[in-house]
Amino acid sequence: EILAAIEARLFPQRPLKDFHALVTAGPTHEAIDPVRYIANHSSGRQGYAIAEVLAELGACVTLVSGPTDLPVPPGVERVRVSSAQEMLAACEAALPVDIAVCVAAVGDWSVAQVADEKLKKLGGAPPSLTLKENPDILATLSKAGPLRPRLVIGFAAETNNVLAHALEKRQRKGCDWLVANGVGAGTNVFGGQRNRVTLLTGQEEESWPEMSKFDVARRLAQRISDYFSSLSIKETQ
Amino acid sequence: EILAAIEARLFPQRPLKDFHALVTAGPTHEAIDPVRYIANHSSGRQGYAIAEVLAELGACVTLVSGPTDLPVPPGVERVRVSSAQEMLAACEAALPVDIAVCVAAVGDWSVAQVADEKLKKLGGAPPSLTLKENPDILATLSKAGPLRPRLVIGFAAETNNVLAHALEKRQRKGCDWLVANGVGAGTNVFGGQRNRVTLLTGQEEESWPEMSKFDVARRLAQRISDYFSSLSIKETQ
Repeated sequence: EILAAIEARLFPQRPLKDFHALVTAGPTHEAIDPVRYIANHSSGRQGYAIAEVLAELGACVTLVSGPTDLPVPPGVERVRVSSAQEMLAACEAALPVDIAVCVAAVGDWSVAQVADEKLKKLGGAPPSLTLKENPDILATLSKAGPLRPRLVIGFAAETNNVLAHALEKRQRKGCDWLVANGVGAGTNVFGGQRNRVTLLTGQEEESWPEMSKFDVARRLAQRISDYFSSLSIKETQ
Repeated sequence: EILAAIEARLFPQRPLKDFHALVTAGPTHEAIDPVRYIANHSSGRQGYAIAEVLAELGACVTLVSGPTDLPVPPGVERVRVSSAQEMLAACEAALPVDIAVCVAAVGDWSVAQVADEKLKKLGGAPPSLTLKENPDILATLSKAGPLRPRLVIGFAAETNNVLAHALEKRQRKGCDWLVANGVGAGTNVFGGQRNRVTLLTGQEEESWPEMSKFDVARRLAQRISDYFSSLSIKETQ
């Protein structure tokens, strides 16, 4: 009781303290051969910021991160992975969780035949890379079942028709909320410090003004916290 | 005269002070679409170390660097590029130079048709990436002509048959020296701090013990400096 009182004084704002959150962040690397791979321009900043803020709100956070140089946010447990396949395995190992926020830019495809040795260009035509579809982490976590997180949030980075693609993606993946952002030429979102997103909750479509990735994280975490407190009020009634 | 005396005191070891060196380092990124690209595991450390040591020996160094987070070495002019095509253009812009050390892991291929918008995986089979051959920077710099550097050094990162591939590469590219190193599984060279190389000068084949990338850089820079001083002795005779 004394400890609880001290804790309440020290951490007045820990509304997520009984929650376990899974956050994915960063790019994935899909091997072509031992030295080459397919990557994408995700820096991991937005996902790392969300993990950090959720931890500040008291959640126990597992951050499954693709390759990035970002430091581990305070209070967060980070699991490093490289490929989409490894990221899925790490996410499944983190279940059960209450909240899943899938921010990682997971490669849609991997190379069908990964070469054991460095491909040589000696003679002949350049190789043609046959791709195969990667597991869909957001759709897998969103699938109904005893381990489904109570709130699954996806991110959709699009270069064109951002909202149309995002609405369709939310439907197709089966996630609860979707955060859509444009990453086209000139937006500077990938690798940058700022972001401009639209939150689709199914009930609402909210366009947020451009702000820092940390502010996007704070606002999203607040929405998550509000969502669960509104649920618990309903449950208590 | 006084300045020269001071300089000689302050910098007793500047044997390359009248030389211009071009060093390439890091990976290249070859775009697939606005968010995806083909990369490789080069960290840029070996090339950055060579640029730094050549500058310490007095050379005026232009470092043409692919994407990396490494800081600019003291006294070095860095030019940042992304693709192999950009790297070639930056190298050609740096000519004439006395010494070219091509350490970058230049992508052998780029994507034949770079998509303007993010490729979608909606429906149908995964795309097949058709590749086209990139310009060969080492071979281009090695080509005889009025702008050929007096000493062109290439690096060959191989996962298997390191020496056989390196001998063949030295011949085919037309460079003067070739530094061969294994980057196969377990070597930890790409991204690591240490390296184990063999120097092929045409006259000799020298296997150096494993050492830090900085020590490889020091030893190679010393060899470069010795080579030019032996030439100048010959020229004076």
